[in-house]
Amino acid sequence: MGSRANGVAGDRTGTSNGGGATVDKGVDFANYFCTYAFLFHQKEMLSDRVRMDAYFNAIFQNKHHFLEKTVLDVGTGSGILAIWSAQAGARKVYAVEATKMAEHARELVKANKLEGVVEVIEGSMEDVTLPEKVDVIISEWMGYFLLRESMFDSVICARDRWLKPTGVMYPSHARMWLAPIRSGLGDQKMNDYEGAMDDWFCFSNETQTYYGVDMSVLTKPYSEEQKKYYLQTSLWNNLHPNQVIGTGAIIKEMDCLTATVNDILNVRASISSSITAENTRFCGFGGWFDVHFRGCKENPAQQEIELTTAPSEDNSTHWGQQVFLLHPPLRVREGDGLIINFSMNRSEENHRLMEVDLSCEIRQSSGNNFPPFKNKFYIE
Amino acid sequence: MGSRANGVAGDRTGTSNGGGATVDKGVDFANYFCTYAFLFHQKEMLSDRVRMDAYFNAIFQNKHHFLEKTVLDVGTGSGILAIWSAQAGARKVYAVEATKMAEHARELVKANKLEGVVEVIEGSMEDVTLPEKVDVIISEWMGYFLLRESMFDSVICARDRWLKPTGVMYPSHARMWLAPIRSGLGDQKMNDYEGAMDDWFCFSNETQTYYGVDMSVLTKPYSEEQKKYYLQTSLWNNLHPNQVIGTGAIIKEMDCLTATVNDILNVRASISSSITAENTRFCGFGGWFDVHFRGCKENPAQQEIELTTAPSEDNSTHWGQQVFLLHPPLRVREGDGLIINFSMNRSEENHRLMEVDLSCEIRQSSGNNFPPFKNKFYIE
Repeated sequence: MGSRANGVAGDRTGTSNGGGATVDKGVDFANYFCTYAFLFHQKEMLSDRVRMDAYFNAIFQNKHHFLEKTVLDVGTGSGILAIWSAQAGARKVYAVEATKMAEHARELVKANKLEGVVEVIEGSMEDVTLPEKVDVIISEWMGYFLLRESMFDSVICARDRWLKPTGVMYPSHARMWLAPIRSGLGDQKMNDYEGAMDDWFCFSNETQTYYGVDMSVLTKPYSEEQKKYYLQTSLWNNLHPNQVIGTGAIIKEMDCLTATVNDILNVRASISSSITAENTRFCGFGGWFDVHFRGCKENPAQQEIELTTAPSEDNSTHWGQQVFLLHPPLRVREGDGLIINFSMNRSEENHRLMEVDLSCEIRQSSGNNFPPFKNKFYIE
Repeated sequence: MGSRANGVAGDRTGTSNGGGATVDKGVDFANYFCTYAFLFHQKEMLSDRVRMDAYFNAIFQNKHHFLEKTVLDVGTGSGILAIWSAQAGARKVYAVEATKMAEHARELVKANKLEGVVEVIEGSMEDVTLPEKVDVIISEWMGYFLLRESMFDSVICARDRWLKPTGVMYPSHARMWLAPIRSGLGDQKMNDYEGAMDDWFCFSNETQTYYGVDMSVLTKPYSEEQKKYYLQTSLWNNLHPNQVIGTGAIIKEMDCLTATVNDILNVRASISSSITAENTRFCGFGGWFDVHFRGCKENPAQQEIELTTAPSEDNSTHWGQQVFLLHPPLRVREGDGLIINFSMNRSEENHRLMEVDLSCEIRQSSGNNFPPFKNKFYIE
């Protein structure tokens, strides 16, 4: 709740909605942008030391990319990346922010004596006009599991319109990862679901008894709604590394300099994973991402920086990981192999949310195979 | 979260927004209606026995209002009121519902063998056309503290367009109440606020130390944002009657047959209350409402029914009460008098949410007077 928002923003061109219907800006604000207008939310992100260290180091250990250069910060929020870019020696920084947070960013820039360099522009990236093209586009656009919120669409739009041919992207690369996990959450959610259904049956009986109305026709849709909510919606969690029970696999790799909206409309991968934990419960999958700051071929970073959101004991981030639970969990052994087909698309109702089709086959080291299973998940 | 929704619906005519700018339907759906499309939310309301009993008894103890009559159910949700109206002998019931919940209502009507009488219409009340005027308009439109959600605008619209001159409203009357209370919530929220500010100062220092950015210019807006959130936003609570420390006073009375949108745009009252508890902490105010089913003068109810959401040990409702906290609380004695000026208006950003200006003077029975104070609150 105090983290990434639930919906996604309007775009006039239609391309930022993957070529679908243009998203109404008001709807987008109500669903998505509005969370970012709160200082509380900005502070949450600014308090994420792993995130802050990565961007700070990426900038200040690569000053050659910034010194006397022009920079565009897409979705500047509080203005932090724009401010660092200016402190690293940028000649000019355009800091674009769609919400009223832009007013606070302007104040922060001024209080840090950088109003000569940083120009905060309130507006959506798809609508604003800059006086010039830029050398660097910097943005912290990553949502849960990388693509939730579909903010990268706006970065692509900015890049295609405003990045010089010789320009660099910060970050330059991004990857999505998946691994089998164990977790107590599955039991918890199954209990919650079963509790909700027990409760439904009491309710349905009482409504018949006291009020003469037969609710039983709604049992099926009610159970589907609760199943989706409790069992099929991916969860935010901070996984401990020892909850990862098999090898992680990359399901998406992206070059931020060349990726198109089409490239990210559907994330599809066939991967395999090997169970590394001995005799354990395979409860589902954990998904996370990493980004890298490498510059580009013609203009590489001097110091490559990585920002990873992989399960970590000491370096967890506000992104956590996304957990996709299996019901029931399955017992697996070290050496068992998983063949996984993963497919993620944008939700029709809200292009900033995702739907996942995940099928999995287990090849046990004993030679037996579990029947393959196929699950649908929702990233809300 | 599992209760009344956060925003309010779009209306083509503009009158349902109190004469202000027409509210965009998509925005309204994203902010408001969408919650009601969930069976989980409908079930919450259907599980409220006090609510259910009141409407059930109002209908079945006044069958003369329904027998062979035409009925309009505004915002039918699951269809329950429409179904009861039909079971009470209505000739025809139009059940209007803006969300996809209408599909479930249709199923429920059919499962209860009433499809010959109840016609479920999916659409917003402001847009639909009925084939005839009706004898009864029934609706469960009340939000927290009665008017949150501003759904009564849609009932007014329905009444003005579709109620016969001889028709009756179910409910027929509504009142808003206010009383001084004691509560531990004030201390809790003040602790939360102070904790948030302590945390801010650590954050601000660390950001300067580790990242070279001076955040102090944001301290004031951050503190105002937290103050609004923790101290000035009214809370949902289920008050126990012994938390009410003084006489309750009516701040609004409404005849549902004649009320106009103008009448409810601004709720203004000057009231007095007498402290009834001995030597206690005056921590703020509790607000609630009641509605009555009296029919109308020409066509009264045979059995008048009351639905009250006043603090109650055994008969609490899902509406709870709205709590407006004072910081700091004040010590008062039995017999002390409060002179209260209350003014509530719709929020500019969202006409379904409210802003309250509340000023209060304490006339102590000892003869001393506290200085009057004035507070702003937000009903979100």
